[in-house]
Amino acid sequence: MLDVCLLGTSGMMPLPRRWLTALMTRLNGSSLLIDCGEGTQVAIREKGWSVNPIDTICFTHFHGDHISGLPGLLLSMGNSDRKEPVTLIGPKGLEKIVNQLRVIAPGLPFPLRFIEFTEAEQEIEVNGYHLKAFRVHHTVACYGYTITVPRGGKFFVEKARENQVPMKFWSRLQKGETLEEDGKIYTPDMVIGPPRQGIKLTYCTDTRPVQSLVQNAKDSDLLICEGMYGEKDKQAKAEEKKHMTFLEAAHVAKDAQVKEMWLTHYSPSLLHPEEYMKSVKKVFDKAYPGKDGKSITLEFADDENRRGREGRK
Amino acid sequence: MLDVCLLGTSGMMPLPRRWLTALMTRLNGSSLLIDCGEGTQVAIREKGWSVNPIDTICFTHFHGDHISGLPGLLLSMGNSDRKEPVTLIGPKGLEKIVNQLRVIAPGLPFPLRFIEFTEAEQEIEVNGYHLKAFRVHHTVACYGYTITVPRGGKFFVEKARENQVPMKFWSRLQKGETLEEDGKIYTPDMVIGPPRQGIKLTYCTDTRPVQSLVQNAKDSDLLICEGMYGEKDKQAKAEEKKHMTFLEAAHVAKDAQVKEMWLTHYSPSLLHPEEYMKSVKKVFDKAYPGKDGKSITLEFADDENRRGREGRK
Repeated sequence: MLDVCLLGTSGMMPLPRRWLTALMTRLNGSSLLIDCGEGTQVAIREKGWSVNPIDTICFTHFHGDHISGLPGLLLSMGNSDRKEPVTLIGPKGLEKIVNQLRVIAPGLPFPLRFIEFTEAEQEIEVNGYHLKAFRVHHTVACYGYTITVPRGGKFFVEKARENQVPMKFWSRLQKGETLEEDGKIYTPDMVIGPPRQGIKLTYCTDTRPVQSLVQNAKDSDLLICEGMYGEKDKQAKAEEKKHMTFLEAAHVAKDAQVKEMWLTHYSPSLLHPEEYMKSVKKVFDKAYPGKDGKSITLEFADDENRRGREGRK
Repeated sequence: MLDVCLLGTSGMMPLPRRWLTALMTRLNGSSLLIDCGEGTQVAIREKGWSVNPIDTICFTHFHGDHISGLPGLLLSMGNSDRKEPVTLIGPKGLEKIVNQLRVIAPGLPFPLRFIEFTEAEQEIEVNGYHLKAFRVHHTVACYGYTITVPRGGKFFVEKARENQVPMKFWSRLQKGETLEEDGKIYTPDMVIGPPRQGIKLTYCTDTRPVQSLVQNAKDSDLLICEGMYGEKDKQAKAEEKKHMTFLEAAHVAKDAQVKEMWLTHYSPSLLHPEEYMKSVKKVFDKAYPGKDGKSITLEFADDENRRGREGRK
């Protein structure tokens, strides 16, 4: 299961009681962050989560509101005695930009590793996650992300017996090993069924509503999607600034057939996002206005209480 | 009169409900900021003050918690349509560091000017302020600041008449001009008395309790001073990390004979600064624990309600 927290919902600048848009996920003791604006580390503390286990930080793009909090976060991670490496992932130019920002965070007690995208779509394996970055359409190079937590097939005793697999191998085969004894080869598919549905989360900001987003978000359990403007008369501004209106985001969610969508990255001028939800829900019923600290635990499809545990906000 | 707001009181890292230590002052429509940590721009908004009129930003030193909020602040000032120049003031290396941080705040609609200190003490005139920076003792080059608002002498009609100054010159002489008519020279001292007591504010963090601080804070109306640790058993740590305990700050305030002192720059481990004030007040009675947003309007000495209007916090 994947713990998901939308740390903030602001676009452009941090506001009192509205942190900059960023996402944090936790899986088996490993934490991942997407974007790190000014104040993101405070939002993490407010949520009650820890900065120490963050091993992966992804960036959608390099506008200040998505990366301005990085030096402070790295310093705090250092102060929390992290020693293990941290992987930074993002568009081309990432390492150079981070190294410039590190003029105020020079001596960290952990190494940084960098992965920069060279393609419009790129896949990365990270500590049990499958991460896919896909190019979207903003005023600068910008990527959305899908996080997939894969789930192997179910173990079938009958199948293992049918295939005459010695019981001493069952556990290791179930974990994916291939084994050999007395000239006979034993493979995982001799004891387990086909892979089961995993968990899929898509996160995307800042962009116009493009096909790469619809395609990559397809069938997500949750889509967290920018909606810079709620007001209908902001359509032209959304097009000019390469952002989305709530309604455009709703059409993306509908076309991608996601199970649920949270809006985020609100314009500072947008004071009450919930006021615009009526027309949004007409397009996509399972659309919700994101709130700072809004959380969910996404669970595997056939587990009990699938997607059941939502946080207090 | 000088509006003073202690924007935050945290040292090392921003915390929920405790912004990083920074000071903002307002005088005749011009605003000055000392230090700008991650979240300082939010603290300014929370106070209800505006980022647009900030024309001067001073830095005590370049540890992340004192400058990490600069790129975000500059971006927000740009978004608020500021066009007038902003002067940045601080230790040697300032321009280089700011230019590196500006990798995420490249296109500002206003010019930046830089003043870097070359001496242990340096004086600068800024929009009606007299600013003095003085070197203190931290792990890196670090300066404290005094802000003095000077006040000219009082105008005396009798004096002007005694000195046979034509009435048409009174106003201009009062403003400091020197005039000449029919071979006779008229100087300001012919109509006004000696300069009156101005307003003096001293701000200092991060440092050990050094003589330059005591000397420069002398007779301040208000000293805002770091006190990283309240606990008595943190004396050795304060010495090691080049910070101060509350008690050391109290001795500075006492020796400098300031009228009032606010403590700030608390260690994240210091949860309740007010719990340590009893022994502090035995050393210096007018010591108060700083709080985020704590404000005062310092007024000229012979004005009514001298230093009377303190904010809600």
